[in-house]
Amino acid sequence: MSEHYKQSQAEQKLDIIDLNDLEEQAAKVIPVGGFGYIAGGSEDEWTLRENTVAFDRRNIIPRVLTGVENPSLDTSIFGIPLKLPIIMAPCAAQGLAHARGETATAEGVAAAGTLMAQSTYSSASIADTAAAAKGSPQFFQIYLSKDWKFNEYLMDEAKRAGCKAIIATADSTLGGYREADLRNNFQFPLPMANLQAFSGGNGQGKSISEIYAAAAQRITTADIRRIAEYSGLPVIVKGIQCAEDAERAIGAGASGIYVSNHGGRQLNGGPASFEVLPDVARAVNGKVPVIFDSGIRRGSHVFKALACGADLVAVGRPVVYALALGGAQGATSVFEQLKKELSIVMQLAGTQTVSDIRGAKLVSSYPGEN
Amino acid sequence: MSEHYKQSQAEQKLDIIDLNDLEEQAAKVIPVGGFGYIAGGSEDEWTLRENTVAFDRRNIIPRVLTGVENPSLDTSIFGIPLKLPIIMAPCAAQGLAHARGETATAEGVAAAGTLMAQSTYSSASIADTAAAAKGSPQFFQIYLSKDWKFNEYLMDEAKRAGCKAIIATADSTLGGYREADLRNNFQFPLPMANLQAFSGGNGQGKSISEIYAAAAQRITTADIRRIAEYSGLPVIVKGIQCAEDAERAIGAGASGIYVSNHGGRQLNGGPASFEVLPDVARAVNGKVPVIFDSGIRRGSHVFKALACGADLVAVGRPVVYALALGGAQGATSVFEQLKKELSIVMQLAGTQTVSDIRGAKLVSSYPGEN
Amino acid sequence: MSEHYKQSQAEQKLDIIDLNDLEEQAAKVIPVGGFGYIAGGSEDEWTLRENTVAFDRRNIIPRVLTGVENPSLDTSIFGIPLKLPIIMAPCAAQGLAHARGETATAEGVAAAGTLMAQSTYSSASIADTAAAAKGSPQFFQIYLSKDWKFNEYLMDEAKRAGCKAIIATADSTLGGYREADLRNNFQFPLPMANLQAFSGGNGQGKSISEIYAAAAQRITTADIRRIAEYSGLPVIVKGIQCAEDAERAIGAGASGIYVSNHGGRQLNGGPASFEVLPDVARAVNGKVPVIFDSGIRRGSHVFKALACGADLVAVGRPVVYALALGGAQGATSVFEQLKKELSIVMQLAGTQTVSDIRGAKLVSSYPGEN
Amino acid sequence: MSEHYKQSQAEQKLDIIDLNDLEEQAAKVIPVGGFGYIAGGSEDEWTLRENTVAFDRRNIIPRVLTGVENPSLDTSIFGIPLKLPIIMAPCAAQGLAHARGETATAEGVAAAGTLMAQSTYSSASIADTAAAAKGSPQFFQIYLSKDWKFNEYLMDEAKRAGCKAIIATADSTLGGYREADLRNNFQFPLPMANLQAFSGGNGQGKSISEIYAAAAQRITTADIRRIAEYSGLPVIVKGIQCAEDAERAIGAGASGIYVSNHGGRQLNGGPASFEVLPDVARAVNGKVPVIFDSGIRRGSHVFKALACGADLVAVGRPVVYALALGGAQGATSVFEQLKKELSIVMQLAGTQTVSDIRGAKLVSSYPGEN
Repeated sequence: MSEHYKQSQAEQKLDIIDLNDLEEQAAKVIPVGGFGYIAGGSEDEWTLRENTVAFDRRNIIPRVLTGVENPSLDTSIFGIPLKLPIIMAPCAAQGLAHARGETATAEGVAAAGTLMAQSTYSSASIADTAAAAKGSPQFFQIYLSKDWKFNEYLMDEAKRAGCKAIIATADSTLGGYREADLRNNFQFPLPMANLQAFSGGNGQGKSISEIYAAAAQRITTADIRRIAEYSGLPVIVKGIQCAEDAERAIGAGASGIYVSNHGGRQLNGGPASFEVLPDVARAVNGKVPVIFDSGIRRGSHVFKALACGADLVAVGRPVVYALALGGAQGATSVFEQLKKELSIVMQLAGTQTVSDIRGAKLVSSYPGEN
Repeated sequence: MSEHYKQSQAEQKLDIIDLNDLEEQAAKVIPVGGFGYIAGGSEDEWTLRENTVAFDRRNIIPRVLTGVENPSLDTSIFGIPLKLPIIMAPCAAQGLAHARGETATAEGVAAAGTLMAQSTYSSASIADTAAAAKGSPQFFQIYLSKDWKFNEYLMDEAKRAGCKAIIATADSTLGGYREADLRNNFQFPLPMANLQAFSGGNGQGKSISEIYAAAAQRITTADIRRIAEYSGLPVIVKGIQCAEDAERAIGAGASGIYVSNHGGRQLNGGPASFEVLPDVARAVNGKVPVIFDSGIRRGSHVFKALACGADLVAVGRPVVYALALGGAQGATSVFEQLKKELSIVMQLAGTQTVSDIRGAKLVSSYPGEN
Repeated sequence: MSEHYKQSQAEQKLDIIDLNDLEEQAAKVIPVGGFGYIAGGSEDEWTLRENTVAFDRRNIIPRVLTGVENPSLDTSIFGIPLKLPIIMAPCAAQGLAHARGETATAEGVAAAGTLMAQSTYSSASIADTAAAAKGSPQFFQIYLSKDWKFNEYLMDEAKRAGCKAIIATADSTLGGYREADLRNNFQFPLPMANLQAFSGGNGQGKSISEIYAAAAQRITTADIRRIAEYSGLPVIVKGIQCAEDAERAIGAGASGIYVSNHGGRQLNGGPASFEVLPDVARAVNGKVPVIFDSGIRRGSHVFKALACGADLVAVGRPVVYALALGGAQGATSVFEQLKKELSIVMQLAGTQTVSDIRGAKLVSSYPGEN
Repeated sequence: MSEHYKQSQAEQKLDIIDLNDLEEQAAKVIPVGGFGYIAGGSEDEWTLRENTVAFDRRNIIPRVLTGVENPSLDTSIFGIPLKLPIIMAPCAAQGLAHARGETATAEGVAAAGTLMAQSTYSSASIADTAAAAKGSPQFFQIYLSKDWKFNEYLMDEAKRAGCKAIIATADSTLGGYREADLRNNFQFPLPMANLQAFSGGNGQGKSISEIYAAAAQRITTADIRRIAEYSGLPVIVKGIQCAEDAERAIGAGASGIYVSNHGGRQLNGGPASFEVLPDVARAVNGKVPVIFDSGIRRGSHVFKALACGADLVAVGRPVVYALALGGAQGATSVFEQLKKELSIVMQLAGTQTVSDIRGAKLVSSYPGEN
């Protein structure tokens, strides 16, 4: 089927002015089914839209006479130094966007000086993706299978490839109700390398719900412990949306909390991920790092998420669009653009360092709210 | 006149992706006057629109690591087991949508494993409708007539047909100001079977206000008692929108409270039915079951209504549209679709059972509100 | 100039479904300059739009089992019985809409069983207008002139014609900034009868700001006393928008408070008139009657205004549009339509009388507001 | 390059009805790159739009029976009498709009009886601009250079030209992320006179970020002291958006606080300038005058800003648009229009003087907010 799915082979630096422009441009390059899978959210996409709109409801106060100059975006997680507080979110099946798939993304992310998170459902294998990053840091996102042999295989591969942490996906015990995929009658046109390497059953020709059928639906804190014990790596629990779940995850041994609503692809009718971030961050209270994603499109969004308690933010769709438009160099361009925007915001908001951002106070944009 | 009103005779399973698609599709199948009667609300339809929009203002928090798996939608009312917490709302004159009218709906609802509520103003008779359900549960919705002989006739018929409860319509002491019917100069083109069987005067060729002219305008708590005493069945008072009226209805012997603003067809300029649900449910406080309708179009709406205190929700227009498009099978498809969506939401919200949903806490979508 | 201004001579009952339809219909009948003068508000018309939108922010709770039947709309002011709590707002220059001007309006208003308020700047004279009402009640709205001889002339005429009260316009010490008039370079194409009778200078060919140039710009509580003393009639102060001014007006001898922002024609950037009504009504506290206008287009709006403390509401533009479309009968149709809508709302809200409406509690439509 | 950039040479009084009309008209006269530079804001221009929208959220209460007549707009700053509380905001490169650049603006502003603020990056020199004002008051806005010789040169020139105060730009330690300039690949097509006179390097052919590269990025309270000491003039710190920065600026010797977000051209994702004004004004507490800009387009906006604590407001873009459309006379027309609108608002709000406006209380436009 892959011979019928026309993959982009573009390889170029992108002249990005606004990350929001990429979606429309990518829609011309990525075949319709693949594009729907990447861009779509669940149900009527209310939560997907809210994810970005919500940033407009909390505002940054410009600060003056602060002596700030050439703000530094350097930061780190688990002792791993990063050139910016923005990482690649784990996204499945990037071969839909580009012939080189995750290997190109990993190369582009590495060039930007930051961290790549690989997905279980990657088009490229863990080893190939890690190799493309040439030593730059990798995390591996596991979608727990009902078959623990497969889970152990994935963790073994991740460790062998040098991944520094396991991201345990907790919000996907089944697939969200994604209408674009239904309307397009979308089936994965390409194999998923990790599935193929383990069992030969590679997902090709299957719908998203068929893929999820092999995944564990019943996930508990015991699974988090088991991942941590088996892998010996820090485990970051992804999909946290409330204080209580953050506390339970930490209680189960999580070394990181990943606040996300899966880019509006899972439960529609829930709040913007940004809306719940402050509560979760208060509960975590610095005990472990907080990663945030869902809706980030601007440097100012990054600033707002960090000011509300995130240590790192992740971006997904814009990078995948850029991948389609420019391969590894395209991916790098997204991070460069966010870096440029964030740097300007930091300067104008009077914050010299990433940790200064954590101390910045946002204000609600309407009177009577706070 | 019925020979000039072209009724659908469709009979097919519908491939529904989003219940909201049905309205536009049904508008092509149902004659304009009938469609206006079904789809329309009162005045400028502000309340009708609010009924659905209001669901976006309270949000579901996704929950993780909960061990939920294959959530169960089973529930019951008055000891009657139901396969899902969603029933058919009482809707008049379904012959407008399909040649088989309520008999097809009852058949489709039964196939979905849930409960049919018949209206006094049905196109088909109580007995025929019940027969089509082949033993699946039925409630009967009474519009009180000024003529108690007719009221007693209806209750006798309902009991004879095995109906398990009487829904007493309290919010329709006259008809709402429905502009679509006025613009279309709509008169019922088809007979109403229950009226015909009693008196021969079957409503055909009459406008909605002429129909209501025969109805009791002055309804009090004494009428609720009288219905309960005469029928010996549980009486559910429909059209409750505030705590005080819920308490008065229960004081008058109501065995159930039905929170509804009649799908925005009666008083326009009132709040969304969903907005008043929490207050009413608090007042009812578990003393009797609470049924909710008005605006439900998604599984997430069902979840939100249950989380705000409803025991069951009812859907009306989407089923009538589906009836026009697919007859009995079409009606079944609506319930199957809501079941599918609700099941996904339950899994992602960490609720194993319908009663777990009752314990879920919603959050307001905007900062400063709660 | 009047020979070039084409006045409607229509005389017919209107088949109104929604008062909002009238504006578009009237725009086809009234010449553009006249239409702009009637329909327009000040600046960018934010306040004009808010006047109607604001009604959506407070909602009526439907009530059931109340025993209400055939609600009565009867009410009174200053002992004058009215068949409905809705009167004609004072509007200038109704000859712009119809050849018979205010005489047709007065006739139509009388036929509806309610009260006509005449404006100083009427096309027809006080006496002619009153005569057309054939004994039905009239109020006279005075725009204070710098020339007290003219003020006294107007009051003398009003008393002679049997007017029952003087409405003293307090919010128009100059004209609002009305852009439609400026864009149309609008000058009154027709004489104003009261001006002509007094001085022969009748306003014809003058712009609205030239008209206002003759009006008193400096108005104080002393003027209210002077009007009351000279006329011996109850004085209603029109244009009140805050509690403090209501108290000052009553202190100066006002017998009525008229809450209005002049239909959004004077100060733009102020709140909807409906937003300030509760505060003003609380301050008045039943000491004198409260009349309300600005934005009323539905029976539900009338209900909401009465529930927020108004004793009577007034409507202006819709009547003037109907005047253009149907003369005296058109004017009557507007009141009949509002009566029909209000009657339905009263029934569904469980209010038997106008004073029951005063006891109804509205709710805010959004969570967190109240 | 200037020979290819077509400058307007218009010289005419403008018949303005609404300042908002000017933008579209000016877009037809000003070349696209220049227009983008003038009209544009940063990022997606959310803050730019909010600057004007925010005025709708606080409303003016019309007041009656106040005895106000012919309100006076006279005011002063630092003892300098002004005919209205509205001044010209400092705007760079006005040669983009008109061949005479700032000399025409200064002439027009002087004719309106108010104050001109010159920008470091003016097309015309300090001396030429001041000369065109023929003795009418001037302030000089300094963008601090890394080269203090240039800063001193500018202050020397400003004093020589009779400027009465220095406005120290604090919010522009680098340029905002202005997408219009990037999309247009905008480079200044014309020389900047002050740069040219000092060093011959005049900015022509440079992009906005190249211009800012010469500016001081690290600005502290010490710089404010140094400007005050060197110039001996009152220093107004521009770009203040919070109470704390206002206090720090005053602590460093500021003689005025200029609340501005640079017309939405610097930090996007911050609140409307009007939203932060009350907090800043409370902190300043009358110790020094407060100037406000960003978003003013109506007389009612001026009133609201003064009621929220501003002593003067400044307008920028509308004047530059009018400059393109009518040269010096065009600039005058903008101030005349705002004066006319403000005068009407003052009369209707019952405020006789500019200081009465300071005592007026605004109300929030939605229930539940305040």
